[in-house]
Amino acid sequence: MPKQLPIAAMDACCSPLAREPLSEDQAVELSKLFKAMADPVRLRLLSLIASHAGGEACVCDLTDAFDLTGPTISHHLKVLRESGLITGQRRGTWVYYRVHPEVLARLSAVLVPGDTAVPA
Amino acid sequence: MPKQLPIAAMDACCSPLAREPLSEDQAVELSKLFKAMADPVRLRLLSLIASHAGGEACVCDLTDAFDLTGPTISHHLKVLRESGLITGQRRGTWVYYRVHPEVLARLSAVLVPGDTAVPA
Repeated sequence: MPKQLPIAAMDACCSPLAREPLSEDQAVELSKLFKAMADPVRLRLLSLIASHAGGEACVCDLTDAFDLTGPTISHHLKVLRESGLITGQRRGTWVYYRVHPEVLARLSAVLVPGDTAVPA
Repeated sequence: MPKQLPIAAMDACCSPLAREPLSEDQAVELSKLFKAMADPVRLRLLSLIASHAGGEACVCDLTDAFDLTGPTISHHLKVLRESGLITGQRRGTWVYYRVHPEVLARLSAVLVPGDTAVPA
């Protein structure tokens, strides 16, 4: 069994970080997601999956974009999956990947800069 | 002089990653920003600065929130500054930090999940 997704932890997370200080627990959960995205290959995989027709892609759709071995691609997909950013579902020969749009949406909302640029 | 900010690189970046695949260059630039945020202390510092009154905080406002030494806090602030997420300006005794709201806004926009959850 793969490690379970930290979706529950993300349920409580978060107001925009510019609105109120993140708690220690929130910061730990968020940092895991940002760590999963702190790699150019994983970001491109995430983007290829999210932007693929139907919001779903199999490994067979992904490998051609990279000059990397299959096991290396699989390793990066595993990191993305364990972070909770994507899910994988085996159907027949292939595993099909999909992003968790609600996790992306929460990350996007956390980073909204708010109204902090100019002092009142 | 501190390293210059990668703001120019961010100017061209990006459509939402769920809309079209990130290029290699875009993925490299974005991964640097996510790497700077891939640490709970740095995320809390970013949030403390962004949510502080007037959108600005000095080191004197930040250290009490952490059970860490001054040099450790300074190291994390330097990583955030070099990534382009924050700027620091010395005024008298203290350095005052501010987020780059346009960098946060771009990151937030890149992560908008788009309409990929359900196939047409």
